[in-house]
Amino acid sequence: MQRNGALYSLVVSTQNGPRKAEAIFAATLELLAEHGYDKLAIEAVAARSGVNKTTLYRWWPSKDALLAAALRDSGLFALDVPDTGSLRGDLLAVSAHILRLLTSEQTSPAVVATLTAGPRRPELGEVARSFFADRMAREEPIFARATARGELRDGVDPVLVMDLLAGAIWFRLLLRGGEAGPEFLEDAVDAVLDGVA
Amino acid sequence: MQRNGALYSLVVSTQNGPRKAEAIFAATLELLAEHGYDKLAIEAVAARSGVNKTTLYRWWPSKDALLAAALRDSGLFALDVPDTGSLRGDLLAVSAHILRLLTSEQTSPAVVATLTAGPRRPELGEVARSFFADRMAREEPIFARATARGELRDGVDPVLVMDLLAGAIWFRLLLRGGEAGPEFLEDAVDAVLDGVA
Repeated sequence: MQRNGALYSLVVSTQNGPRKAEAIFAATLELLAEHGYDKLAIEAVAARSGVNKTTLYRWWPSKDALLAAALRDSGLFALDVPDTGSLRGDLLAVSAHILRLLTSEQTSPAVVATLTAGPRRPELGEVARSFFADRMAREEPIFARATARGELRDGVDPVLVMDLLAGAIWFRLLLRGGEAGPEFLEDAVDAVLDGVA
Repeated sequence: MQRNGALYSLVVSTQNGPRKAEAIFAATLELLAEHGYDKLAIEAVAARSGVNKTTLYRWWPSKDALLAAALRDSGLFALDVPDTGSLRGDLLAVSAHILRLLTSEQTSPAVVATLTAGPRRPELGEVARSFFADRMAREEPIFARATARGELRDGVDPVLVMDLLAGAIWFRLLLRGGEAGPEFLEDAVDAVLDGVA
C-alpha cells in the first residue's frame, strides 16, 4: 500500500501536477474574481479544472497556499525581467508590467482582491508578502546591472525604488481612482530617476 | 407644521449636527473597525453616538455619505498643512501624517477598510476618490510655496509627487508587509526630491 501510494504520488506529480497546474491556477483566479476570497472553494477549483480534489490538497494544503502559488507561478503573472540596456528602459518595462497586472481583465480581480485584502484578512497578508518578495527577487538583476553601469546612486535601496514606482501606480489607479497610461509611467520613472527638485 | 419643522431642523443643525458630529464620526469609525463595512449600520452609529437615527439621515443620506464625511471631517484625520519653510520639511511632515493614519489604532482600520475595498465595493471607490481629492486640495499650498521658492522643477505635477510618496508608504506597509519608520520616510522624500540616478 505504502509503495503504491508513493508510486501514485509520483504519477500525479508528473502528470496532473505540473501539467495541469496552469488550468488549476486559471480556475482559481477565475473563481476568485467571480466570487471573492471568502467563497473561493477548493471543490469548485477542482471541478472547473477537471482535477481531483485530493490531488489539489496534495499539492497545496490550503486555499492560501493554492492562491499564493497561482499568483507566483501562473503564466498570467509571469515577469520576464527586462534587460533593455538602461535602468530607465528596465524600469519603464517593469512599470508597464505592473500596470498590465492591475488593469487586465484576467489578472486585475485576483491581484486586487488578494493583495488589498487588508488587516481583516491576515491569512492573505502572507500571500501578498510572498508575492512581493518573489517579485523583488526577480527585479534585483535590474538594479545589479544598473549599479554595474553606474546608473544608480550609491546606497540607494532597490526596494525603495520599487516601493515608489509600484506604489505610485497602485495609488493612482486604486486609491485615487485616476488614470495611468504610458505617459504617467514615463513621468513617474523620470521623477524617481532624476528627482523633482 | 412646516414652520415648526424648519425651526426643529435649525435647532438640530446647530445643536446635534456640528456639535455631535465628532461623536458620530467616532462611532462610525469604531463600528467600521469592529465589524467591517458590510455590517456597518446607521442604527448602530445612532445608538453609540446618542443621536437620533432620523437626524443622521437628515445630515447624511447614506452610509457612504456618512463614511466620506467621517474620513474627510473627523478631527482624527485632520491634516494641518505643514509650512516648515522648505519643500523637504513639508513633504516629511505630510509623509509622517500619512504614516500615522496608516498605523494609529484609531485611524488605521477605517482608512484601510475603506480605501482598499477594491472593485468589488464600487460604492467605496467614490469615498476614496473624495477623500484623496480633498487631501490633494489641502496639499496644494505646499507645492505653490515650493514653486515660489524655486524648489520644484518646472512642469512637475504635484499629484505625481504625492502618488510617489503616499504610494511608497502604502505599498511598503500594506502590500509588502514591511516596516516604515522615520528613516524610510526620509529616504523616500530624498529619493523623490533628488532622484536615485
